[in-house]
Amino acid sequence: MIKVVLLGSGNVAYHLALALKSAANVAIVQRYSRNGTHNDYFDPALPCTNNLNELKEADVYILAVKDEVIGRLSRNLRGIKGLVVHTSGSIPLMELHQDLRKGVLYPVQTLRIDQPVNFSEIPLVIEAERDQDLELLHELASALSKKVVKLNSKEREKLHISAVFANNFSNYMFICAEALCIEHNISFDILRPMILETGKKLQYLDPLQAQTGPARRNDQAIIEKHLDALEGDKKEIYKLLSDSITSTYQIKK
Amino acid sequence: MIKVVLLGSGNVAYHLALALKSAANVAIVQRYSRNGTHNDYFDPALPCTNNLNELKEADVYILAVKDEVIGRLSRNLRGIKGLVVHTSGSIPLMELHQDLRKGVLYPVQTLRIDQPVNFSEIPLVIEAERDQDLELLHELASALSKKVVKLNSKEREKLHISAVFANNFSNYMFICAEALCIEHNISFDILRPMILETGKKLQYLDPLQAQTGPARRNDQAIIEKHLDALEGDKKEIYKLLSDSITSTYQIKK
Repeated sequence: MIKVVLLGSGNVAYHLALALKSAANVAIVQRYSRNGTHNDYFDPALPCTNNLNELKEADVYILAVKDEVIGRLSRNLRGIKGLVVHTSGSIPLMELHQDLRKGVLYPVQTLRIDQPVNFSEIPLVIEAERDQDLELLHELASALSKKVVKLNSKEREKLHISAVFANNFSNYMFICAEALCIEHNISFDILRPMILETGKKLQYLDPLQAQTGPARRNDQAIIEKHLDALEGDKKEIYKLLSDSITSTYQIKK
Repeated sequence: MIKVVLLGSGNVAYHLALALKSAANVAIVQRYSRNGTHNDYFDPALPCTNNLNELKEADVYILAVKDEVIGRLSRNLRGIKGLVVHTSGSIPLMELHQDLRKGVLYPVQTLRIDQPVNFSEIPLVIEAERDQDLELLHELASALSKKVVKLNSKEREKLHISAVFANNFSNYMFICAEALCIEHNISFDILRPMILETGKKLQYLDPLQAQTGPARRNDQAIIEKHLDALEGDKKEIYKLLSDSITSTYQIKK
């Protein structure tokens, strides 16, 4: 039985609390929340403290807190004997305080407290300083998800940059699309099924195969027509991305 | 009963043929294929010709052909009494020959001959020159899909530009993400569940609400770190999109 103390009260903490509760051979024994945010969302049966001196003994302490808080919070955990892991995609392992047994448990998914997820489908990226801790973390992660991947801090940073493209930047393309729809009084709902289809398709297809559109065909007549109809950031984005797509496929030819 | 002749043999023609066959009060009476491409994919019971002089009489002739062929093919249809519609997002109605009864039936989805779809979920954008033809087209489109939207050529062009952002450009973000993964020997599979989740989330969420990441938080430290790790097109794209996201949310504040 792996005993876990969870620190945090945000989106990641919420989903981790649920996943930890239902995981086999895992016991979530306590939660720490500095100021009680979202307390209503959490299981009232789970003991909660706002005092770091009252933390219970556990095998693993999970810091599901904002990136900028990780270093400071970990300094306040000096003396803790269990493995201390953070859940960030972008913070190096070594930002945890040097005296601690350090690790990372990074769920590669955008989590929102108001949206249910199937946690077992979320890839979990793990890292630890020592082999024995990595084994413990692997055991814990495997109890939470079917997909566990070991990466070091450098690899995790690269993955995080990829995730910015795959998640944040793709979403911004949807924002641009919606803004154009609103500007011309067209319902964005017309585009939603296509967005879902893209997500489904990319579960098995290579995005290089899935690319379509004027830039892929190097259809300069349409590209020029579209550029004429755009202005500001959207025009710049359209131009840069079309040029980049066209050259990607010209190189491949 | 609406009688339809389908012209074409590509991705759109394939899915239209299936949808037309199973639609109520619609009879697909013939298909035209200039050179017999993909003939194996189509129902052998459906009469097929490669001779435009042999086209049967029908209420609607659907030109499911490449954009650049539409004008020429429609000129060869002079004398046809039925309504002639094309299926393109970007070609104006008026590119169909002036003597014809003209219309548009544009399925807003990326269709591939090797991928099944639920056609009734695909939004169909319709347009016709005359009210009576628009009514006929509405009846046909409603037999094929639950989502039928009337737009004029100008609106359809704007929608098409939006679709380039929502579909082509978002997919290019996935291409960039995959390229970064490959470069650093990380499996792109780690990102696939997040991509699917984004697609699902955007069926009910506004992309402006869904945006996360360093640029949304205006986290310049992380942005600088990521820019240092990138080069070439990806660096330029990262910078332009991050600046654009940051200013979008600063304006909204």
